[in-house]
Amino acid sequence: MLIRLGYDIRFYMAARTAFVAMLHVHPSRTDDLLEPDHMRIESGGTTILPDSYLDSFGNRCSRFVALPGELKLTSSTLIEDSGAPDPINPRAIELPVEQVPNEVLRYLMNSRYCEVDSMLHIATDLFGGLAPGWQRVQAINNWVHQHVTFGYHHARATKTALNVYTERTGVCRDFQHLAVTFCRALNIPARYATGYLGDIGVPPSYTPMDFSAWYEVYLSGRWWTMDARHNAPRIGRVLMAVGRDASDVAITTSFGQSDLTKFEVISDELPGAVATQ
Amino acid sequence: MLIRLGYDIRFYMAARTAFVAMLHVHPSRTDDLLEPDHMRIESGGTTILPDSYLDSFGNRCSRFVALPGELKLTSSTLIEDSGAPDPINPRAIELPVEQVPNEVLRYLMNSRYCEVDSMLHIATDLFGGLAPGWQRVQAINNWVHQHVTFGYHHARATKTALNVYTERTGVCRDFQHLAVTFCRALNIPARYATGYLGDIGVPPSYTPMDFSAWYEVYLSGRWWTMDARHNAPRIGRVLMAVGRDASDVAITTSFGQSDLTKFEVISDELPGAVATQ
Amino acid sequence: MLIRLGYDIRFYMAARTAFVAMLHVHPSRTDDLLEPDHMRIESGGTTILPDSYLDSFGNRCSRFVALPGELKLTSSTLIEDSGAPDPINPRAIELPVEQVPNEVLRYLMNSRYCEVDSMLHIATDLFGGLAPGWQRVQAINNWVHQHVTFGYHHARATKTALNVYTERTGVCRDFQHLAVTFCRALNIPARYATGYLGDIGVPPSYTPMDFSAWYEVYLSGRWWTMDARHNAPRIGRVLMAVGRDASDVAITTSFGQSDLTKFEVISDELPGAVATQ
Amino acid sequence: MLIRLGYDIRFYMAARTAFVAMLHVHPSRTDDLLEPDHMRIESGGTTILPDSYLDSFGNRCSRFVALPGELKLTSSTLIEDSGAPDPINPRAIELPVEQVPNEVLRYLMNSRYCEVDSMLHIATDLFGGLAPGWQRVQAINNWVHQHVTFGYHHARATKTALNVYTERTGVCRDFQHLAVTFCRALNIPARYATGYLGDIGVPPSYTPMDFSAWYEVYLSGRWWTMDARHNAPRIGRVLMAVGRDASDVAITTSFGQSDLTKFEVISDELPGAVATQ
Repeated sequence: MLIRLGYDIRFYMAARTAFVAMLHVHPSRTDDLLEPDHMRIESGGTTILPDSYLDSFGNRCSRFVALPGELKLTSSTLIEDSGAPDPINPRAIELPVEQVPNEVLRYLMNSRYCEVDSMLHIATDLFGGLAPGWQRVQAINNWVHQHVTFGYHHARATKTALNVYTERTGVCRDFQHLAVTFCRALNIPARYATGYLGDIGVPPSYTPMDFSAWYEVYLSGRWWTMDARHNAPRIGRVLMAVGRDASDVAITTSFGQSDLTKFEVISDELPGAVATQ
Repeated sequence: MLIRLGYDIRFYMAARTAFVAMLHVHPSRTDDLLEPDHMRIESGGTTILPDSYLDSFGNRCSRFVALPGELKLTSSTLIEDSGAPDPINPRAIELPVEQVPNEVLRYLMNSRYCEVDSMLHIATDLFGGLAPGWQRVQAINNWVHQHVTFGYHHARATKTALNVYTERTGVCRDFQHLAVTFCRALNIPARYATGYLGDIGVPPSYTPMDFSAWYEVYLSGRWWTMDARHNAPRIGRVLMAVGRDASDVAITTSFGQSDLTKFEVISDELPGAVATQ
Repeated sequence: MLIRLGYDIRFYMAARTAFVAMLHVHPSRTDDLLEPDHMRIESGGTTILPDSYLDSFGNRCSRFVALPGELKLTSSTLIEDSGAPDPINPRAIELPVEQVPNEVLRYLMNSRYCEVDSMLHIATDLFGGLAPGWQRVQAINNWVHQHVTFGYHHARATKTALNVYTERTGVCRDFQHLAVTFCRALNIPARYATGYLGDIGVPPSYTPMDFSAWYEVYLSGRWWTMDARHNAPRIGRVLMAVGRDASDVAITTSFGQSDLTKFEVISDELPGAVATQ
Repeated sequence: MLIRLGYDIRFYMAARTAFVAMLHVHPSRTDDLLEPDHMRIESGGTTILPDSYLDSFGNRCSRFVALPGELKLTSSTLIEDSGAPDPINPRAIELPVEQVPNEVLRYLMNSRYCEVDSMLHIATDLFGGLAPGWQRVQAINNWVHQHVTFGYHHARATKTALNVYTERTGVCRDFQHLAVTFCRALNIPARYATGYLGDIGVPPSYTPMDFSAWYEVYLSGRWWTMDARHNAPRIGRVLMAVGRDASDVAITTSFGQSDLTKFEVISDELPGAVATQ
């Protein structure tokens, strides 16, 4: 399956402003790209070339300085996807912490929006008595999916997992933060993921496309995709970045005032297309 | 100057428990060590050898599984120190974010106990009007030092910078979290540090020695030591670990119930000693 | 000046639900009414008569049980108003607490959305150094007005004064909660008020009318109207209820699930009208 | 049974400070007093007579202005008590809200330390499925008693029910705040109570006596004593004050800086005594 990916994101700012963007397909998917994954940056009437680097989580980041006026970030690329839904493995097991690799340990810890320390007892009350493994993670995913109501007006920048637990409302990221926090509180490594997720294989949502958030859990020695927002295997996720929570993988971070003026995301299957590699 | 460093830390636990410890002198100080920096681990009547690794912040970590019963972590080592107080450089400047190195950018972001997003306005109100640079960081340090009251009974595991700002009480780590958060909110990279700090050059405190927390700010292209708790240059700091906040540099993390039964830290100048290298 | 007041508020509910409404003109304004201030309650195809009582703050409350289906609350009344703007008295003084009447003391205390205990230091930092009296209250009002941005999408049920202080956004009630909390933290009695406030004497807002919130401070032995949202004297406020914060004076409280389906408020000056008493 | 009640509470303050004290036996117990319930106030070398009033909850309050220096509040009185333990009535029922008296409705609402709005979902998850009535309240009491750990070092002035729920630690008042909030979230009126509670009929605690907190629930048309801290019927409670939470019934409130220097409470059964009325 071929998926056309892209975006057109614009900001207006009054002053020179440093930016960091995480608007690339994740390095783990580079081999699937059929066109260059190039972010075009237009600012102050000129094209800017960013500095590119990998952050400590392995995400590809771009940094640049936007000039006063409009900033336009655009991209269009093509990726080959297996077309298979998110894998399910009911036999995947929770590893004892001692078997968790060094570089995965960080995904057991507290982070800005995942206050594991404050939710330890709650997670234990709810899920501590369940048999460890895939089914327990699925129980967490079910719980969050069933108890939290989706709504764009429920979003706010500082909303944490505990806020989601008490308010029971949120957007994509809020669902995932709560599930991630429950997992970590039970010593199951979990990380936040962001990327493209179109309406492939599901009824069209007819809402403006956005990037999507999901999360991954580490079971049986590898990462598995989970999604407490949708709670059903999906086709066509294209990962952009992973981190401990939304604070690590902000699509864009501006170090100064910037106003979003346009936000379009494309993630469409190319019907009938045949991949040419 | 020679400083004798060491500790004797004991836990009791009922079950096998995975541990991560950050109880080594920081790699940046390895060349100053005059004796091996070895952590002895005794557990269940035997000596355990840990796995050692560097985390994403460059700290040396040890992981191991403690057996039921007593866990005893001990060390004694000797380090040569310049004997010079923390450097002061009133001409050190704040770098524009675009000049901050890639690997330093993370120290501008939110973390568990440093909610930059919630304290942006407060920091701007208090310090936004001051001239950038060393003096502004010093103003932050002064403010925290003067407005927060120290007391061990004010400690709690989940206390964040915002809590410290409203409660105006805390221990070492709380002072530093608040100052770190103010700095980041002003786009000054700041990181949390933990290590040894004895009563060298100051009146003895007569309280049981503990590890100490301070923080570092990135000005003029390098890190500078700051300490909102003491707010005066000190002699004999020996760094153990740096991170975004206390959650990244916990001295020990146990993945399961463990009860601290003994906690002794040593950080003494060897009077009259001459370093032999 | 004559002001036509009224509302049409509707809910849908699936089950029998107890309600308390505070939808009457405040007893202190009863003498100004030129028509009966009657709330008509239609529920389950019939007209319901409520029980009426005064709460401990002196507000007129109505309680009733709504039947499954639509609940319709309507009213239309006419009030005579002085037409004078909110009074200003720069010479009004803060009373020492010992001179505050017994029944006013409660307006110095903590309440759900006004965490005086958490904001004591902040209020002292900001306003503790100012000369007591009207000017200090005006300084508080100015500060809130200037630092908080209005927006309906910033509303949430659990938002407290401290939240407003950190987020710097909110609706009417949030502005007043923050100002009220600052006042109380400085030992100035302050209470939350809700009522009608039309666009009399100001440019029309062209937004759907709503009830409005303001607050009152106790200076020189009486209550004075303050409004951190508008920060300018207004004409035509008609008080409905006072309390410590929004939790005490909810327009309607339903003890069970109810969905708001319509909300219209009227507060219009009758042009050219002459009061007939 | 006769119980000797009394206290010796002292403060030091640098400046004239207004005080409100709730240090009297509750009006509902006045008829049981065998000696006058007189609070002696010594301040600045003289004896002060307070103004006395009933607050909106019906508690007897004393207000006065303490002079610079030591403030000494003392009392000794004698009360006759039934000697019966807190009554238990497994058949007591929850009233539908519509049958709750007007003056009891306030005990269903939010208050400073009882954030009903934030804990609605949590309470429903835990107790919403249980049959209404005494047994459900008992289930709440059991839950809090079993899940929260007592410790004086866990006290802090701003701790709310939600904090207690996440931290699972606290003192008397914290246990009761959590239970009260659970009850209200389920539409069971609940109020906070403070008073004397000696070691009558239980093993002596050997800790310094303090006033105690408990709570009351409104079932079958009357208030019943509950105590999530002890979770067992006790003998010899003497009520001093009731309110929505600890903020309403502070033993003393000082409007200015005051330092507690002594705190002794007496609540002893007079062995073998015979009441003379």
